[in-house]
Amino acid sequence: MDFDAFFKEQLDEIREDGRYRVFTDIKRHRGSFPHATRFVDDETQAVTVWCSNDYLGMGQHPVVLEAMHNVLDECGAGAGGTRNISGTNHYHVELERELADLHGKEAALLFTSGYVSNWAGLGTLASKIPGCVVFSDALNHASMIEGIRHSRAPYKIWNHSDVDDLDCKLSDFGPDVPKLVAFESVYSMDGDIAPIAEILDVCEKHGAMTYIDEVHAVGLYGPRGGGVAEREGLMDRITVIEGTLGKAFGVMGGYIAGSADLVDFVRSFASGFIFSTALPPAVAAGAAASIRHLKNSDAEREQQRERVAEVRRKLDMLGIPHLPNPSHIIPVMVGDAKKCKMISDWLMDNHGIYVQPINYPTVPVGTERLRLTPSPVHDDGDTDRLIHALSDIWSQCELARGSIAA
Amino acid sequence: MDFDAFFKEQLDEIREDGRYRVFTDIKRHRGSFPHATRFVDDETQAVTVWCSNDYLGMGQHPVVLEAMHNVLDECGAGAGGTRNISGTNHYHVELERELADLHGKEAALLFTSGYVSNWAGLGTLASKIPGCVVFSDALNHASMIEGIRHSRAPYKIWNHSDVDDLDCKLSDFGPDVPKLVAFESVYSMDGDIAPIAEILDVCEKHGAMTYIDEVHAVGLYGPRGGGVAEREGLMDRITVIEGTLGKAFGVMGGYIAGSADLVDFVRSFASGFIFSTALPPAVAAGAAASIRHLKNSDAEREQQRERVAEVRRKLDMLGIPHLPNPSHIIPVMVGDAKKCKMISDWLMDNHGIYVQPINYPTVPVGTERLRLTPSPVHDDGDTDRLIHALSDIWSQCELARGSIAA
Repeated sequence: MDFDAFFKEQLDEIREDGRYRVFTDIKRHRGSFPHATRFVDDETQAVTVWCSNDYLGMGQHPVVLEAMHNVLDECGAGAGGTRNISGTNHYHVELERELADLHGKEAALLFTSGYVSNWAGLGTLASKIPGCVVFSDALNHASMIEGIRHSRAPYKIWNHSDVDDLDCKLSDFGPDVPKLVAFESVYSMDGDIAPIAEILDVCEKHGAMTYIDEVHAVGLYGPRGGGVAEREGLMDRITVIEGTLGKAFGVMGGYIAGSADLVDFVRSFASGFIFSTALPPAVAAGAAASIRHLKNSDAEREQQRERVAEVRRKLDMLGIPHLPNPSHIIPVMVGDAKKCKMISDWLMDNHGIYVQPINYPTVPVGTERLRLTPSPVHDDGDTDRLIHALSDIWSQCELARGSIAA
Repeated sequence: MDFDAFFKEQLDEIREDGRYRVFTDIKRHRGSFPHATRFVDDETQAVTVWCSNDYLGMGQHPVVLEAMHNVLDECGAGAGGTRNISGTNHYHVELERELADLHGKEAALLFTSGYVSNWAGLGTLASKIPGCVVFSDALNHASMIEGIRHSRAPYKIWNHSDVDDLDCKLSDFGPDVPKLVAFESVYSMDGDIAPIAEILDVCEKHGAMTYIDEVHAVGLYGPRGGGVAEREGLMDRITVIEGTLGKAFGVMGGYIAGSADLVDFVRSFASGFIFSTALPPAVAAGAAASIRHLKNSDAEREQQRERVAEVRRKLDMLGIPHLPNPSHIIPVMVGDAKKCKMISDWLMDNHGIYVQPINYPTVPVGTERLRLTPSPVHDDGDTDRLIHALSDIWSQCELARGSIAA
């Protein structure tokens, strides 16, 4: 077989579909993020990033950077091994304690990414609990889906955030069947929030274990940044809380938090955990500093909420359609892959505004969008430039204006 | 189902088998590694690490740390997004160029870990190439096995490094069947090296694509640290070279290198790549600095070879049995799980020498061992203390002395 010809052909196909991804090459500027420099061919361009998941700008916070500099000097660059073979650094142990405390759980376990924490966490639970059936929300993230697939456990997909459908699907299995219900709190692309309490009511009725992905919520919701479940006083009713250190906390890595035995079980059996080099100690220390800061400071969360409300208000004034939701994510709806890409290119080329177009397969065809993530580090000038640029291109392209019903 | 009771019962089972892992909690000392501080209960202990995969001590090299400090200050902590959504930093782009150059390939692609690069790289190729059959060496790493399993592609396991068996198994499939042969260069636990040229001869005869895992070789072998395939002049005959930034390069992350189309294909289709937050820019910069240094400096490799030879010579003088192999890994064979753990504990408690016991399932029952990884940062004093301590415990426990036939 001519492998390269096959690869080329497959790539051509996604190019024709408009699904081929060209990565935007930037350097973020510490201290003035969301400002960054874009590299394109041999030129550079000053840009403002409006699509980052560094939701609170913690990636440039002095407490985070100081911790990382200090631990780089104290412990060096890498961990030097898997957690079991010389790779457990005291900063991992401290971070896991910080995370357990954040979620009011007995224990927490670090992974190299949120993707791996979902894949390995769900994959291990679903494959190792004999007879386990998984109930997965229809819009769960790829990492959860792949973990469930990898487990080979039977699974049922319930309609997105539809508690009645979940109840109905759980009812198809007797009380002796071990059940694992997996869902997210904030869904990344629509920014909607799951009815967690209602889901938990149903799960408790059926004796199901619950696994919540709070990656788009930790740091951002709850009085200490424990996520939507903290805000709603529900953390103690959830079996496993999964989160990331790479979005609102501004660094990298993922984790699960739960009972001591559950966490020890995953630690002992999850291949993706056991056989991976541990996170660099400085990364662990930076993440711990970020979590500690956001446990005690509400300022970043407040400023983010204000900025999000401001952007929404200005979009509404100009009739730029965006999906209403109760979160910090503003999906500006375009509804066409080529237009979406074109608007994104135009914003970048003419205004140095960087908003990645979100097309199929990340979102369904016909719901293509620009996903805005306003943060405390965007100022009034950044916001005005964004809004005026969007208004300009909406006029130029004669795009539909108006609001979208909640 | 009482989930926690089930977890407890499973944990008790591995405790009884002697397979329960207790992580050793240490702080590495930058500048004096392999020296570290161990944390146990409320006490600390000075220890020397003899089981790290920071094989050359690059995790504390000034060029690596300087690059990381600089980029922390320049770009901040995290990448802030997936590679496609604002997370591609110029330091990722530069590192991928450095890696492509290291292996003489057109392109390279970064992953968050070596585990993910194998899982996602092999998993994507095997699942997306229609009709692909995978031929996997019997001792391949867990990450390769999980990638192959995840792909759902049919696979055959060939006897470890047995070229005739591979030839025979490949012959069972016609020339039109796409074939992917996966193996390692240096096997981590026995330290043996694959007969790469012979494997490539057979693969070329059958038109099979080849995928080599060089994680225990990159940085260490070849005139520029390109791995065993570089040393043997074979890189251009291999389809995919996979490596890590977390062992000899001293930082973290994994990668594949190959043709531009192959790499673009994996970039475009691998879920574990697409949906993960990118590595922190400072991590990418530190890894690139490490690679650049080891492309131009042979001193660390020479010193490592000398230290490895010195440890082997002294073990031989005292008749401490170790598995002969052509690599830098010295497996001191104990052959009993409990003894192996006991020796490891005794070395730690009485001499502050940290060598993790390697037991089943990482190695077969009856081949339990202490895996020593001498490095340029171990000095004569460290070596003498290790050797004398081993000799002491060998005498005290009346363990068998003598050499192991190659």
